[in-house]
Amino acid sequence: MELLSALSLGELALSFSRVPLFPVFDLSYFIVSILYLKYEPGAVELSRRHPIASWLCAMLHCFGSYILADLLLGEPLIDYFSNNSSILLASAVWYLIFFCPLDLFYKCVCFLPVKLIFVAMKEVVRVRKIAVGIHHAHHHYHHGWFVMIATGWVKGSGVALMSNFEQLLRGVWKPETNEILHMSFPTKASLYGAILFTLQQTRWLPVSKASLIFIFTLFMVSCKVFLTATHSHSSPFDALEGYICPVLFGSACGGDHHHDNHGGSHSGGGPGAQHSAMPAKSKEELSEGSRKKKAKKAD
Amino acid sequence: MELLSALSLGELALSFSRVPLFPVFDLSYFIVSILYLKYEPGAVELSRRHPIASWLCAMLHCFGSYILADLLLGEPLIDYFSNNSSILLASAVWYLIFFCPLDLFYKCVCFLPVKLIFVAMKEVVRVRKIAVGIHHAHHHYHHGWFVMIATGWVKGSGVALMSNFEQLLRGVWKPETNEILHMSFPTKASLYGAILFTLQQTRWLPVSKASLIFIFTLFMVSCKVFLTATHSHSSPFDALEGYICPVLFGSACGGDHHHDNHGGSHSGGGPGAQHSAMPAKSKEELSEGSRKKKAKKAD
Amino acid sequence: MELLSALSLGELALSFSRVPLFPVFDLSYFIVSILYLKYEPGAVELSRRHPIASWLCAMLHCFGSYILADLLLGEPLIDYFSNNSSILLASAVWYLIFFCPLDLFYKCVCFLPVKLIFVAMKEVVRVRKIAVGIHHAHHHYHHGWFVMIATGWVKGSGVALMSNFEQLLRGVWKPETNEILHMSFPTKASLYGAILFTLQQTRWLPVSKASLIFIFTLFMVSCKVFLTATHSHSSPFDALEGYICPVLFGSACGGDHHHDNHGGSHSGGGPGAQHSAMPAKSKEELSEGSRKKKAKKAD
Repeated sequence: MELLSALSLGELALSFSRVPLFPVFDLSYFIVSILYLKYEPGAVELSRRHPIASWLCAMLHCFGSYILADLLLGEPLIDYFSNNSSILLASAVWYLIFFCPLDLFYKCVCFLPVKLIFVAMKEVVRVRKIAVGIHHAHHHYHHGWFVMIATGWVKGSGVALMSNFEQLLRGVWKPETNEILHMSFPTKASLYGAILFTLQQTRWLPVSKASLIFIFTLFMVSCKVFLTATHSHSSPFDALEGYICPVLFGSACGGDHHHDNHGGSHSGGGPGAQHSAMPAKSKEELSEGSRKKKAKKAD
Repeated sequence: MELLSALSLGELALSFSRVPLFPVFDLSYFIVSILYLKYEPGAVELSRRHPIASWLCAMLHCFGSYILADLLLGEPLIDYFSNNSSILLASAVWYLIFFCPLDLFYKCVCFLPVKLIFVAMKEVVRVRKIAVGIHHAHHHYHHGWFVMIATGWVKGSGVALMSNFEQLLRGVWKPETNEILHMSFPTKASLYGAILFTLQQTRWLPVSKASLIFIFTLFMVSCKVFLTATHSHSSPFDALEGYICPVLFGSACGGDHHHDNHGGSHSGGGPGAQHSAMPAKSKEELSEGSRKKKAKKAD
Repeated sequence: MELLSALSLGELALSFSRVPLFPVFDLSYFIVSILYLKYEPGAVELSRRHPIASWLCAMLHCFGSYILADLLLGEPLIDYFSNNSSILLASAVWYLIFFCPLDLFYKCVCFLPVKLIFVAMKEVVRVRKIAVGIHHAHHHYHHGWFVMIATGWVKGSGVALMSNFEQLLRGVWKPETNEILHMSFPTKASLYGAILFTLQQTRWLPVSKASLIFIFTLFMVSCKVFLTATHSHSSPFDALEGYICPVLFGSACGGDHHHDNHGGSHSGGGPGAQHSAMPAKSKEELSEGSRKKKAKKAD
C-alpha cells in the first residue's frame, strides 16, 4: 500500500515539476513583483513623470534574477530580454497596474484572496528558478559548490539582491541598508533552498529533483501565503537561527534591535557609521502593510 | 527625372554610410566628449591633482558606449581598449584639452564656428554607432527586438547612461538624478533612433539602412548644431511628447517643474524622498552655458 | 665567474617563479587581506550581527582581483569560486580571525614579526598575479597594450579598486574618495608593475619574465615590510612623481594637502563639490596604526 502511495507521490511531484510556467505562473510572478514596486514610496509619481524609468524598474523587478545570474556566469546581461513574449506580458502588467483607469486592475489584484493565489503561484516560479539556476551552474562547473549555491541564490532572490541599484534608477539612494545586511524571508529561503538543491544536484541528498521541487514549493507557498495573509514579518527561520548563530558567531544574527531610524538616511555616515539597523522587516512584508497606506495616499 | 534624382540620393546615402570614421570623425567625437568633461565642475582641478582619474573619466566619455554595449552582450568590457590608435588619439585630445599651454587648444575648439563643425561630426559617429550596435545585436538575437533597441540606445547615448558612476570616479555622487530620470536630447534621440533602426533591421521599415543613416544623421546634425548654437535646452521631441504622454500615461512626462533644489544634494533622502526634480535641462546644454563660466573661473 | 653568478641568479629566479602559491602563500594573502577587513570601523560588529555580509566582504578582499579581471575580460565573475579549496581556506581564515576564542588567532597574526612575514608572502602572490594577468590578457589581445596594463593593474590591486562597493556591502558609503583619487602604495606599485610586465611581455624589456618577477617581488617585499614595520605612509614613488607630475601635469599629483575633513562625509555635495581631499594615506597604512586602536576598542 505504502509503495503505491509513494509511487503516486513521486509521479505527482514529477508531473508538478513539468507544469509549464509560461504564461500563467509567470503572469502571477510579474503581477506580484510589480505590485511591490507600486508599494515603494514615490513609485506612482515616478510612473507618471518618468514612465521609461518606471518601466525599467518594473523589468528589473520581473527579470532581475536572470540579469544577476547572467552576470555571475559571464553571459549577456540582456539575454533574457530576447524573450519578446515575456517582456510584452510583463510590460502589459506594468501598464495595467500603474495606468488602468480607476486603478481597477490594481484593486482587483490587491484583493487579498486573489492576491494570495498570485503570491502562491509566484513561489512556484521562484523554486523552479532556483532548481534551473543550479542545474545551469552545474553544467558549467561540475564541482563548483559555491558557484551553484550563488547562482541558485540570485535566481531565487531576484531584484532584492540589487535593490540599492534598482532604487538608484528611481533617484533614491539608501546605502546604509541592503538585502544582505537585512535579509528578508524570500532571500533567506532562496539561500537555504539553493544549498538544498546543490546537495541534491551533487548526490549528497538522496532525493529526486522533482520531489525536492515539490516539497520546497509546498514549504515556500505555505510560508508566504501565511506571512502575506497575516502581514506578519517574522520568519520561520528565526527559531533555528536563534540556536545556531550564538553557537557559531557568538551573538544573535541580524538582531531585530529597534533603532530609532531618525532623520533622513544620510549616506556614508563617515567612518564607523553605525548601521542604522532598520528593524529586520522583510521589504515585502513592510511594503505590504504600512506602504499600502502610503501607496493609497500617493494615488 | 525623379527616378534619376532618387537614384543619385540613394548613391549619396550609400557612399555617405561608407565614409570611414577613423581618424577624422572619431577625433571630433573625442574633442566634443572631452570638452563636456572639462565643463564639469572640478574637472580642471581633478586633472591637475589626479591625472589618472581624469584620464579614466575622459576614456569613459569617449568609449562609454562600447563598454555598456559589451556589458549587455556579455563581451569583454575592455574589448574596445585593444584599439591602441583610438586610445592614443583620445589620450592626446585629453592631454591637449587639459594641459595645452595657455589653454590654446581648448580655446580653439571652443570657438563656436569650429565647435559647431565638431558637434556635427560627432553626430555622424553617434548615428553610425546606433546602426552598428543594432546590426551586432541582430547578429546574436535575430528576433530580439528589446535587445536590439537596448544595444542601439546605449551605443548612441554612451557615457550619459552611466553618468552616476562616471561622477563617482571623480568623487562626486548625485543619486537623486540620472540620465533615465532626466533624459537629455541626445539620449532621447538615441532611443528613438534605435527604435527606427530596429524597425529597419527587421524589415518593418521599407527603407535601406544607408538611407536611414543619412536621413537620421541630417536630423541629428541640424538639431544639435541648432541647440548648441543657441544654447537652447528645448528638445524637438517636446511637442510630440506633449501629445502622447498625457494620453498614454495620464500626465506630461519628465515635467519641467522647477523645484527649489535647496541645500546640498543629500542622497538617500529616506523613504518617500521627493525626486528633487532638477529642471529637465540637458546635461550637455546646461554644461554649454552656465558651466562654461564655471570652467573659465576654475582655469 | 660573473657568467656563473648570472647563470645561478637566472636559475634562482626561474625556480622562484615556479614555487607553487597554494596553500602557503595564498594562506598568507588571505590572512593579511582579512586582517585589513577587521581593521575597518564596524567590521567586528558586522561579523557578529551579519555574518553572511561579513563573509562576502572577506571573499571580496581575498578574490576581488579575480572578479575584476574576469569582468574586464568578459569571463564569468564567479569563475574563481569554483576553486573549492581556496574558498574553504579563505573562509577558515575569516572564521578564525573574527570568531576564534579569546581572539587568539588574531593576536598571533598581529604580532609584528609574524605579520611582517605574512605581508612579505602576500607581495609574492600579488606580483605573480600581475604577471599571470598580463599573460592571460596577452593571450586574448596580442597587441592590446592598454588591455594588458589594465588587467595586470586590477589583478595586483584587487579589492582596493572596488572599495566603494565593498564598503556598500557593509552599509558604508563614502563616494567622495576612492582608490583612483587617493591611490595607496600597493595600487600605484601594481600599476607601475603592470606597465613593466607589459613591456616585458611585448619584448620591449629585454628581461626574462622570471627575472622580472624575482626583482619586482624583492622591491615590493622590501617596501611593504618597511612601510608596515614603521607604520609609515610615505611611498617610494613620491620623489619620482614629485619630478614628473609638475612637468607633465603642471602641478603635484594627489597633493597631500591636509583638508579639514570636517563633518560627516556627506555624499554628493552637489555641483562643484570640493573633493574633501583625505590626506593621501594608504588605506592599508592608515588601517595599520589608527584603526588598530579602533579595532581594539570594537573587540
